Amino acid sequence: MNVDAARYDQEAIDAHRRWRGKIDYRSRPAVSNQHDLSVVYTPGVAAPCVEINKHPELVWELTGRGNLVAVVTDGSAVLGLGNIGPTAALPVMEGKCVLFKEFAGVDAIAIALDVHEADQIVDAVAAIAPSLGGVNLEDISAPRCFEVERKLQERVAIPIMHDDQHGTAVVALAAVINALKLTNREPAGTRTVITGAGASGIAVAHLLRSYGVQEISLIDSKGLITPEREDINPYKREVASWSGRGLNPDGSLPQVADLLPGTDLYIGLSGPGLVTPAMIATMNRDALVFPMANPTPEIMPALAAEAGAAVIATGRSDFPNQINNALAFPGIFRGLLDGKIPKITDAHKLAAAEAIAAFVGDPTPDRIIPSIFEEGLGRAVADAVMEV
Amino acid sequence: MNVDAARYDQEAIDAHRRWRGKIDYRSRPAVSNQHDLSVVYTPGVAAPCVEINKHPELVWELTGRGNLVAVVTDGSAVLGLGNIGPTAALPVMEGKCVLFKEFAGVDAIAIALDVHEADQIVDAVAAIAPSLGGVNLEDISAPRCFEVERKLQERVAIPIMHDDQHGTAVVALAAVINALKLTNREPAGTRTVITGAGASGIAVAHLLRSYGVQEISLIDSKGLITPEREDINPYKREVASWSGRGLNPDGSLPQVADLLPGTDLYIGLSGPGLVTPAMIATMNRDALVFPMANPTPEIMPALAAEAGAAVIATGRSDFPNQINNALAFPGIFRGLLDGKIPKITDAHKLAAAEAIAAFVGDPTPDRIIPSIFEEGLGRAVADAVMEV
Repeated sequence: MNVDAARYDQEAIDAHRRWRGKIDYRSRPAVSNQHDLSVVYTPGVAAPCVEINKHPELVWELTGRGNLVAVVTDGSAVLGLGNIGPTAALPVMEGKCVLFKEFAGVDAIAIALDVHEADQIVDAVAAIAPSLGGVNLEDISAPRCFEVERKLQERVAIPIMHDDQHGTAVVALAAVINALKLTNREPAGTRTVITGAGASGIAVAHLLRSYGVQEISLIDSKGLITPEREDINPYKREVASWSGRGLNPDGSLPQVADLLPGTDLYIGLSGPGLVTPAMIATMNRDALVFPMANPTPEIMPALAAEAGAAVIATGRSDFPNQINNALAFPGIFRGLLDGKIPKITDAHKLAAAEAIAAFVGDPTPDRIIPSIFEEGLGRAVADAVMEV
Repeated sequence: MNVDAARYDQEAIDAHRRWRGKIDYRSRPAVSNQHDLSVVYTPGVAAPCVEINKHPELVWELTGRGNLVAVVTDGSAVLGLGNIGPTAALPVMEGKCVLFKEFAGVDAIAIALDVHEADQIVDAVAAIAPSLGGVNLEDISAPRCFEVERKLQERVAIPIMHDDQHGTAVVALAAVINALKLTNREPAGTRTVITGAGASGIAVAHLLRSYGVQEISLIDSKGLITPEREDINPYKREVASWSGRGLNPDGSLPQVADLLPGTDLYIGLSGPGLVTPAMIATMNRDALVFPMANPTPEIMPALAAEAGAAVIATGRSDFPNQINNALAFPGIFRGLLDGKIPKITDAHKLAAAEAIAAFVGDPTPDRIIPSIFEEGLGRAVADAVMEV
């Protein structure tokens, strides 16, 4: 959300009232006489049913399943609004369905769930899976989102992706790839600090590590996540050793000001005003600074630039280099569906990030990632995913 | 299904392959620039979310929930094909979605379930209920379908209707209403025999009884359902006393040939060839004969007419008076949604049947129910349901 979000409020409410649902379910066949009805429904419809019963893979040819993704939430972590519940989350889910269709031709339905325990969410989505080609989990709070994604993917043979994690990670990595290129860095030597250890922070850390970044310090509300800490969940524990840093000499937990000196890349997935110009000034030369908190970044771009940042990216559309999930998820699912890929892996995410980075052509500091309105991006991402 | 169903087989398969899904999910808003995106999705979408969070009833104004029905099956009793499983059932469910849209402007999504125990089905559908305005249960085998419908309706505040039961019952009753009118009968004195005690047979018996028909003999594969029988489920037991008939004098269970003499109305929801012209000849004068089995009726209409039937209705489109659920379910749900009615009752079903019967105008033996292609039928049924 932008700081000027409020200026959209009335316009958005009016528009939603006019639409009464952002998806229009149209019938492809016309049904104007008995013959039409006999082909669309009974008795003719028995023939495709019998065919699918005999050859289950024909469901992808004879129904809409192969192009259908469910955007699923329990409404527990919606935008910056928090746990507003399933029905209040519906406008976001419908919005996501619109983006799926507009940017990649993927059909999508909004599914808001009235269950909130991880196992209940898994059961509910697994139950409806025979209707679907894929599942985009959305706005489910951490750490349940990790468990839901893992268990659900173990249960069903269609791709499951929690976009808050992996969409963010893919687009952030795409920006990193071009930023490294611009500043002549290799991933292995790029010392990285991330503030925010929720779903997206942990996912970004994982994907950067898969890309070859070795030293990643992840910071939560208490400070650096270190193996010594007893108060961290298993998902934080998995990344705790990647910092290579221990406690401060005085025995305290390192904070962002202790960790930024000598680092190359800062990624913020936390909250406004967490980072000062003085901290940025302690980073290595040609620092890469991605304060992605919305609506207000961890540091405003102009301040980061003055403090020496060479490349800056945010989550906002009113600054250059907007790290927007919509660059990734439509094309990723387009590729997963077209390739009939039953499970998304790190290789798919890396390929998607590389495709988004390559789509830019020659990056400049003000253009390390494309705009979501650039023609052909969804297809390029889809092709990269399918080629894995 | 008609006996000539096979002639549609290749055409239907080809058409389904061309459609690749009979529902096209279109975006209502265009998303061609940053401003569009800010209204459809972030940051603008936060405003309708906040509004719904504050005033939950606004979900019906600001999202598509109020016009959305899920057509839900577990694939256990599909057409005449039986338990073909959820994915093979998808063409039927998509076909039903098309009819919802074409005949009543209701948006519908096909949900095929990978769970089969009644409680699991209830849990899965209740979980996704916040996304939906209503649920059309479809092709779920008896007796689980009764339990699923009842428990699900107890759990959620949106209307749940098992169409195999109630759609059939409403249209059969509409036909009965006009047939009684044509032959100067009152419901109370109309002695009735029904063959077939599955979901639809039991539902037809219930709705006829609510309409005022007193004597209803329901026959399953073993014979008359009587209170003495130990081998019947609770749903059959509920209707067992309505016959008023006991065992045959020789102690055997009455069969259809024992029960038809002296009756006014025969309804077949069983199987082909169960009734002979000689049996029809034993019915009262101006007998009403509705052999509805598909593709082959319990007795062919020409034979029933020769044996003295005054009014004949079947499930087939190639004879007059087709008792087709599509006459009822689109309009019923249109009315339930428009009226924000949280639960369907007998009063709604009776009103729908009366509306369908009245839509005919002056009935004749060859026209006791309208064709589904008559303009305005869905609206007339919806209005009747809303007026209850």
